[in-house]
Amino acid sequence: MIQKVAVILSGCGVYDGAEIHESVFSMYFLAKKGIEYSLFAPDTMQAHVINHLNGTELRQERNVLMESARIARGKIAGLNQLKVNDFDALYFPGGFGVAKNMTSYAFDGDDMSVDWQVEDVIKAFFKAQKPIVALCISPVMIAKVLGNVTVTIGNDGATARSVKKFGAQHVNTEINEVFVDEKNRIITAPCYMHDASVLEVAANIEQAVDALIRF
Amino acid sequence: MIQKVAVILSGCGVYDGAEIHESVFSMYFLAKKGIEYSLFAPDTMQAHVINHLNGTELRQERNVLMESARIARGKIAGLNQLKVNDFDALYFPGGFGVAKNMTSYAFDGDDMSVDWQVEDVIKAFFKAQKPIVALCISPVMIAKVLGNVTVTIGNDGATARSVKKFGAQHVNTEINEVFVDEKNRIITAPCYMHDASVLEVAANIEQAVDALIRF
Repeated sequence: MIQKVAVILSGCGVYDGAEIHESVFSMYFLAKKGIEYSLFAPDTMQAHVINHLNGTELRQERNVLMESARIARGKIAGLNQLKVNDFDALYFPGGFGVAKNMTSYAFDGDDMSVDWQVEDVIKAFFKAQKPIVALCISPVMIAKVLGNVTVTIGNDGATARSVKKFGAQHVNTEINEVFVDEKNRIITAPCYMHDASVLEVAANIEQAVDALIRF
Repeated sequence: MIQKVAVILSGCGVYDGAEIHESVFSMYFLAKKGIEYSLFAPDTMQAHVINHLNGTELRQERNVLMESARIARGKIAGLNQLKVNDFDALYFPGGFGVAKNMTSYAFDGDDMSVDWQVEDVIKAFFKAQKPIVALCISPVMIAKVLGNVTVTIGNDGATARSVKKFGAQHVNTEINEVFVDEKNRIITAPCYMHDASVLEVAANIEQAVDALIRF
């Protein structure tokens, strides 16, 4: 039974960190369904800082854990504190932080690398046969780390091609669908990979949490 | 009938900006009840930047509008763009941004000043007899600007005394209550002024939105 989930944030803000709505709705629906969660983030520097008004880069440095702490209201720990035995599942919201801070997908595409701590955590939960939830762009990282699994990132052709390049299978989904790889215990949901409303994204995350509960 | 609401953010993060959960749940419940909203923030510099891991001050400068844009996913405008005629109500989530960026309450207490643009907007909605919603710490600002109104900031004694010093009345509330000043059309809810859970805060915000709909 899923009682306690480790949620991994990648900063604070869709263009250079964790997607804020996806993170907050994840906390909300996990709590609503009676699942406890703890928040973690890599204690590393962001790839860069984006002005969220116009998409330009700011000459500033920010730390991923410190910025993630904004979403967490301070209740968050470094990813190196995460003990797999303490949790029943691993959970990644989306946002460009996944593609910039936890991996280099936004810069290197199919040649991307993955933060070694993040990679270790994904492999450890997978090996322990514990479910992994990945929203939005984060299934790309799951595909890169685990290879032969099946995920969805919605219906974006280029990203789906990357998923396949990493040896994984891709299933197209709409905003009201999640995909569950039963065999590998991996739940993926497209969320803001679609041009979706706040209500659609919230509903999609509730579906993902419901799918997690069924394990 | 309330169809369109102007939501005013004060940054991104509870200790130096808008409270993120309160902001996202406000967007969520407004949308869920069929109310359109637009987001605005003052185009000013933050009073300071706080490390949300440990509460210390960082040697960095950030812009309130630019940081608020993280919560808004870029869909936000400067407060000077707000036209009162376009909206049926004004809405303030909480967070220290209200007490640091939109007012100086966190630094000056009862001697606080209010950003003149924020003050103008509050007075304009009040004069137009349009409802104002204020969550968490933001009722202090409403009390300072409008004087003889009745609000709640939960049950914190020092903050309640400030409210009264500004010529307003204060009503204690628990986390499952909102207060409606029917005569002045002001709805206030304590939210994270209590040591509340994410579920309690979400429910409190839904109550505030329900109270707004009744106008």
